[in-house]
Amino acid sequence: MTKWVYTFGDGQAEGRADMRNLLGGKGANLAEMSSIGVPVPPGFTITTEVCTYYYENNHTYPAELKEQVNAAIKQMEDKMGMKFGDEENPLLVSVRSGARVSMPGMMDTVLNLGLNDKTVEGLAKRSNNPKFAYDSYRRFIQMYGDVVMGVHSENFEHVLDRVRDENGYKFDNQMTVEQLKDVITEFKKICEDAGRPLPQDPQEQLWGGIGAVFGSWMIERAVIYRKLNNIPSNWGTAVNVQSMVFGNSGDNSATGVCFSRDPATGENYFYGEYLKNAQGEDVVAGIRTPQPMTKLVKERSGTDMPCMEEEFPELYKQLSDIRAKLEAHYKDMQDMEFTIQDGKLWMLQTRNGKRTGTAALRIAVEMVREGLIDKRTAILRVDANQVDQLLHPMFDKNAKKEVIARGLPASPGAAVGQIVFSAADAEAWASQGKKVVLVRIETSPEDIAGMHAAQGILTARGGMTSHAAVVARGMGKPCVSGVPELRIDYPGKFLKVGDLVMKEGDMISIDGSTGEVMKGALPLVLPEMAGNFGEFMGWVDEIRNLKVRANAETPKDAETARKFGAQGIGLCRTEHMFFDPSRINHMREMILAKNEEDRRKALAKLLPYQRQDFVELFKIMEGLPVTIRLLDPPLHEFLPHKREEQVEIAQEMGVTVEEIAARTAQLHEANPMLGLRGCRLAVVFPEICEMQTRAIIEAALEVSAMGMKVIPEIEVPLISSKKELEICRKIIDETAEKVFAEKGKKVEYFVGTMIELPRAALLADEIAEIADFFEFGTNDLTQTTLGMSRDDAGSFLPSYVSKGIYERDPFQSLDTTGVGKLIAMACEAGRKTNKELYLSICGEHGGDPASIEYLNAYLDGVSCSPYRVPIARLAAAQAAVKQAK
Amino acid sequence: MTKWVYTFGDGQAEGRADMRNLLGGKGANLAEMSSIGVPVPPGFTITTEVCTYYYENNHTYPAELKEQVNAAIKQMEDKMGMKFGDEENPLLVSVRSGARVSMPGMMDTVLNLGLNDKTVEGLAKRSNNPKFAYDSYRRFIQMYGDVVMGVHSENFEHVLDRVRDENGYKFDNQMTVEQLKDVITEFKKICEDAGRPLPQDPQEQLWGGIGAVFGSWMIERAVIYRKLNNIPSNWGTAVNVQSMVFGNSGDNSATGVCFSRDPATGENYFYGEYLKNAQGEDVVAGIRTPQPMTKLVKERSGTDMPCMEEEFPELYKQLSDIRAKLEAHYKDMQDMEFTIQDGKLWMLQTRNGKRTGTAALRIAVEMVREGLIDKRTAILRVDANQVDQLLHPMFDKNAKKEVIARGLPASPGAAVGQIVFSAADAEAWASQGKKVVLVRIETSPEDIAGMHAAQGILTARGGMTSHAAVVARGMGKPCVSGVPELRIDYPGKFLKVGDLVMKEGDMISIDGSTGEVMKGALPLVLPEMAGNFGEFMGWVDEIRNLKVRANAETPKDAETARKFGAQGIGLCRTEHMFFDPSRINHMREMILAKNEEDRRKALAKLLPYQRQDFVELFKIMEGLPVTIRLLDPPLHEFLPHKREEQVEIAQEMGVTVEEIAARTAQLHEANPMLGLRGCRLAVVFPEICEMQTRAIIEAALEVSAMGMKVIPEIEVPLISSKKELEICRKIIDETAEKVFAEKGKKVEYFVGTMIELPRAALLADEIAEIADFFEFGTNDLTQTTLGMSRDDAGSFLPSYVSKGIYERDPFQSLDTTGVGKLIAMACEAGRKTNKELYLSICGEHGGDPASIEYLNAYLDGVSCSPYRVPIARLAAAQAAVKQAK
Repeated sequence: MTKWVYTFGDGQAEGRADMRNLLGGKGANLAEMSSIGVPVPPGFTITTEVCTYYYENNHTYPAELKEQVNAAIKQMEDKMGMKFGDEENPLLVSVRSGARVSMPGMMDTVLNLGLNDKTVEGLAKRSNNPKFAYDSYRRFIQMYGDVVMGVHSENFEHVLDRVRDENGYKFDNQMTVEQLKDVITEFKKICEDAGRPLPQDPQEQLWGGIGAVFGSWMIERAVIYRKLNNIPSNWGTAVNVQSMVFGNSGDNSATGVCFSRDPATGENYFYGEYLKNAQGEDVVAGIRTPQPMTKLVKERSGTDMPCMEEEFPELYKQLSDIRAKLEAHYKDMQDMEFTIQDGKLWMLQTRNGKRTGTAALRIAVEMVREGLIDKRTAILRVDANQVDQLLHPMFDKNAKKEVIARGLPASPGAAVGQIVFSAADAEAWASQGKKVVLVRIETSPEDIAGMHAAQGILTARGGMTSHAAVVARGMGKPCVSGVPELRIDYPGKFLKVGDLVMKEGDMISIDGSTGEVMKGALPLVLPEMAGNFGEFMGWVDEIRNLKVRANAETPKDAETARKFGAQGIGLCRTEHMFFDPSRINHMREMILAKNEEDRRKALAKLLPYQRQDFVELFKIMEGLPVTIRLLDPPLHEFLPHKREEQVEIAQEMGVTVEEIAARTAQLHEANPMLGLRGCRLAVVFPEICEMQTRAIIEAALEVSAMGMKVIPEIEVPLISSKKELEICRKIIDETAEKVFAEKGKKVEYFVGTMIELPRAALLADEIAEIADFFEFGTNDLTQTTLGMSRDDAGSFLPSYVSKGIYERDPFQSLDTTGVGKLIAMACEAGRKTNKELYLSICGEHGGDPASIEYLNAYLDGVSCSPYRVPIARLAAAQAAVKQAK
Repeated sequence: MTKWVYTFGDGQAEGRADMRNLLGGKGANLAEMSSIGVPVPPGFTITTEVCTYYYENNHTYPAELKEQVNAAIKQMEDKMGMKFGDEENPLLVSVRSGARVSMPGMMDTVLNLGLNDKTVEGLAKRSNNPKFAYDSYRRFIQMYGDVVMGVHSENFEHVLDRVRDENGYKFDNQMTVEQLKDVITEFKKICEDAGRPLPQDPQEQLWGGIGAVFGSWMIERAVIYRKLNNIPSNWGTAVNVQSMVFGNSGDNSATGVCFSRDPATGENYFYGEYLKNAQGEDVVAGIRTPQPMTKLVKERSGTDMPCMEEEFPELYKQLSDIRAKLEAHYKDMQDMEFTIQDGKLWMLQTRNGKRTGTAALRIAVEMVREGLIDKRTAILRVDANQVDQLLHPMFDKNAKKEVIARGLPASPGAAVGQIVFSAADAEAWASQGKKVVLVRIETSPEDIAGMHAAQGILTARGGMTSHAAVVARGMGKPCVSGVPELRIDYPGKFLKVGDLVMKEGDMISIDGSTGEVMKGALPLVLPEMAGNFGEFMGWVDEIRNLKVRANAETPKDAETARKFGAQGIGLCRTEHMFFDPSRINHMREMILAKNEEDRRKALAKLLPYQRQDFVELFKIMEGLPVTIRLLDPPLHEFLPHKREEQVEIAQEMGVTVEEIAARTAQLHEANPMLGLRGCRLAVVFPEICEMQTRAIIEAALEVSAMGMKVIPEIEVPLISSKKELEICRKIIDETAEKVFAEKGKKVEYFVGTMIELPRAALLADEIAEIADFFEFGTNDLTQTTLGMSRDDAGSFLPSYVSKGIYERDPFQSLDTTGVGKLIAMACEAGRKTNKELYLSICGEHGGDPASIEYLNAYLDGVSCSPYRVPIARLAAAQAAVKQAK
């Protein structure tokens, strides 16, 4: 019989931490904590396989599930000495989701389950706190009504608002028992009006809760979150049913969320927040501003709220020991939830904490220093995509800044943008290319897509563990939360800080590392690559096998690349060099030439520019290889397509506008991606290839004469056969020999080719015989292998990803199944005929960690944009570590 | 030591017929003839390997060649009892080319080599015919000057013209010995003026001649001919050096060209022409109209010229026996050249004769009946591409025709077109899409490309074996030659027949089967498929393994296909059905729909049309499968792009023109070939797929209810992954089930997919799991595998073919190396997971014999245009025969 249910609690557990795929992260860790003696309220986990079963079987459960759940409930009853549904001594439970990876706030939860008109009285008697009991029942109905019965929570909130208003209360906890009972009656009426009465049977409540959690796996915000975080839908979620413990049962109770180190900076101190007499949801939701954990934090933040270290010194000590125990056990920074019920500490959850790139790096480096982990483990601890954050601009320290408010440094980084006040606006403005900062009173899971679209998030309410803070850190977006002086008017679309009014569209700057909010757009600068980062990248370079180069044409890009550790230029797209205003007319002259002679004249004018381009690149890249791709795009890209542009060019060039228009029309192609471009240009117009080769070789000789080492690599694009490369290589070699003869000097150079057409990949063995290197142009190779134009895929690719035809956008992350297979074949075939062949890729995928992980097994190197060089270096090291395992 | 030279003659030979690759066709057959006792002037063959050596070694020869040639000359001298260069009894030789396959008139020849100022006197004495001797010397200088020394032949012709004019001669042979001597003096002066004197040393003459023949392998007309006939350049030519025998040494001499059967019709009689007192070149060049061979032909043609059977009865009998001997020996129709010198018959050449498609078929069928060859051999005897000729239209026998002249039926078939008077014009007009008939006084090898571009060729001069006739038959072009009443004015660009004047651009019709020339454009009709053709195709169908279906959408095409033996419809492109004026507006409505509801409304209007289309096809194809491809092209192809069209549509549809323009612009794609098309339409707009499936299934049920067997196959285009096909198949199956439920009836149907993207080919194993059939769409597969747009390749593909990057246009003949490899991989992978998978291709390559030969090893069937069905059937049978070998 399949085991669908795993119990835990009281120092025992059926599950373990390594059963995360089956039990979800939360369930696996509850089991693990229980096993190692951490106090955990007893409960059980329904496995993720039940979720899969549920979706594959038309929302039904396996036959044996009910029986296994009942047995597990019985165990809980025994451990807690209470009975589920008992009118005297009722056991109450929580029902929570728990996927393999945390999806904070994405899925549904029901608390206080087991309460009904009878058990609430038992709870009141047992706790001797009727107000707590009825408040719990009120909360239960509100949550169950919303989550399970689909009653909009506003309906309940209106009632609470009214009662507060009528009585002049500021908070719900000011209500009397009688008022609570009236509220409960009204709540039950609301449920009934919405369709059916609130179930009184705890068993029915339980299965309603379980169904709601499984159901929430597929709600829109969860689906969006998974898409943004590349989490496959078929993983499913587990459901955790656990004995309730109450942080809100009185002033000797409390609830909190804490991290074993600072998730924003990585600093090693006890980080967290708690609220007295509250349920956990109150902390996360950001409605009340919570208290700090430690005296240290209290001092730093300058708050006068008491901290846990002061209020509950004993329990703080116990919790602090648990912090140390869990971190030592898991060897990673922990994100924990706890509840104090009537003076007893319970751990509700522990998991590896989400962290910013900065924090991930610091924690990894410090844990190596502490001897907790080794370097190879440390390398896996930093998400390569997060490294992006460390490289992205910060505010210029010397810039004059007008700080208008201060909040919590909830997610580090600098963000500058126009103010918008809703997630929908953030998406809409961003889609028009505008940079926006999303300003909200607080955020909720519905705001995810808007947060993703924004440069940064600013919220008036909420702590360091509020929804805005947690999600922003996960996304690597700067966030400042909990700015008390901030007043936001949604309908009026403006914010106020004191007398200052800022409207929608006004520029604002936020610093998520300091919590500062500034008026206007502050200037940004590049970060330094030293300290922890430098040390960490040193380990990365020790471990990785793949070489990492950069795609660069300009001296600026080449310098950035070198600074970021590029081992050469892997792709210099010469066509980018021809768009400069000083050259575009010579280029157009070349294209418009009526015969070879005129074409050669125009090329002769371009030659000095090209040579100078290469001289600069060779100097910057001294000692490192520079791969220069010959002219690649369709020629008509260079021509003016608008009438007024054509008139201008015609005048400048002394030809008629009709000539310009005619030649432009003649060069028009139905499918330019598959037209006269790449090496086809060299085959049809060999003189273009000659000019470029001459420029490269002359530049190499010039720089070489300055005593610098130059390693030029000439790359022929869009090859589809060996013969084609043979023809191009002949032009290159003959031109080089000619230049050598003219100058009386030589320099070593290499000739290779892009493999970017399926035919080239299929015939890689032949082609390799006459190539010094292969560079897979995976952008074009993806376009041709999938028959999908990157420029046109927008009309169907979103459907394709959402329907699971492609797991991800194949232009962002390599289609390993199809294109990857072709690359693997080509690598094997190429190496068979040419042992010395250097194999690499360039293009988007060269900087994508998932692609690098796949390609590590086949290639010698990758090339990517300068800013992604450190990411690629790390991803290559991670791939090496994983492959070695 | 490599043997570079092979001797023959006097009943002996070092070579054999099967050494064609080494000795060329001519050399191999001279050797073979000599071996079997046919009288052949002795000589030797320099192998094709010398030609290869010559081009690989900077136009030099192997070291041993000279010695081997000298030894072979010695043998010739011994056999003929003469000496090369001897002043008394000089041996004269011819130097001719001879490639593996005949290239008539393409390469250079030098005759009478060995003559100089001294030997000509010896020849005069020996022959006792000084006029013959000096005429031979005159011819030699003219030919050697032109071919070896590069003196333009016009220079010589001017001298001859002048001498004729001065003396009132009509023919050169009216010249006296003294006049010939003067001419010779002038000729030598011409050579000297052009750069250097005519070599007097026979050895120098010989090597000059050999060099000229090897050199002529690469002259332009030879290169073009090879390209048109798919002959690889690296085959090279052999050189045949042979003792001269003279058909022009007096009235007891003659020379002729004959075929063992009629190369135009295939009829089994002795076909040929000869000229008394002439050299062979005179017959082929078409300058004099030659005499018939037999009484039969004389009677048929109604000429009053004497025939060989009358003039040389003994020699005719000898020749007739040789004809029988050679045909029995080679088991194929022979093309022979002979010379009678002073009453002795010499065979100069035999080779398998070129023939028209009609002749090939008749000869093959009759040779099987005669027991000369078996059916499998017969099948290989008919060039599949030539079958085209048998299927192409003939003149409607009932049409009124105005015959303006009659000539020789030089190459059968009907041609209609506008008159042009030069090969260059023929090419230029044809490239603008015009159909032209090339009208020339006579044609020469320079005219090849123009002949290829024309519908047919009409010449005023020349016999059945003239250049025009031979080349036209080779190309399968209709040709009427030798029309005596035709006067052509090149500068004036008109022709005259009696008083009738026709100008360039006027329509003319020629019947190459009857020799008739008609004014205007005669109507054309389809040929009948019976008689020899029917019998032959019966053998073809017995032997072939591949099924042959047709690509057809219209009832007319479907009927044609069935008549031509198609075994079903392999590709019905549904989009072609939407361009009909009655539907295009509904189609546009569908595309312009703002939402699914509106789209469904428009689709509902298209449904009855689609259903009716399929009803008709199913009825015509009763009992045979019909593969229907779902909508494939980018939607914007259906939209009006011109402003005035948009205005019209907007009015008709009751929307604003701006809406039409906006939606059209929105649907514009950078690379439509790689955009929203194929199954992507079905994924994004499932309702389109639903409508088409419904139309197919409803039509199938309707026709099935009439008692006819219907086999519908639904084909999903542009698949790139299994999941995609899964989604489409689900829509199809669910729709079919719905229709079955509505109608209470069922019909069996199949669902398969096009494999036209490299990714689909790479993942064929997965995809095959849920496909009933694969159809390789080799047009798109070629475009994506080669990264080459068919619409845009015109700007570079000609360069690519001429530079040998692709051997042939990969859109006409499958790129077996690249695309073919992918297909082979996909077939193997597909069959691995689905044993029942039906594998086929559609598109251009499905009707191309070379492609079929390659694909025969992998596929179950092909589909091609209706007119190519018989070609595909034959090609499939030939592939089966070859593969069995």
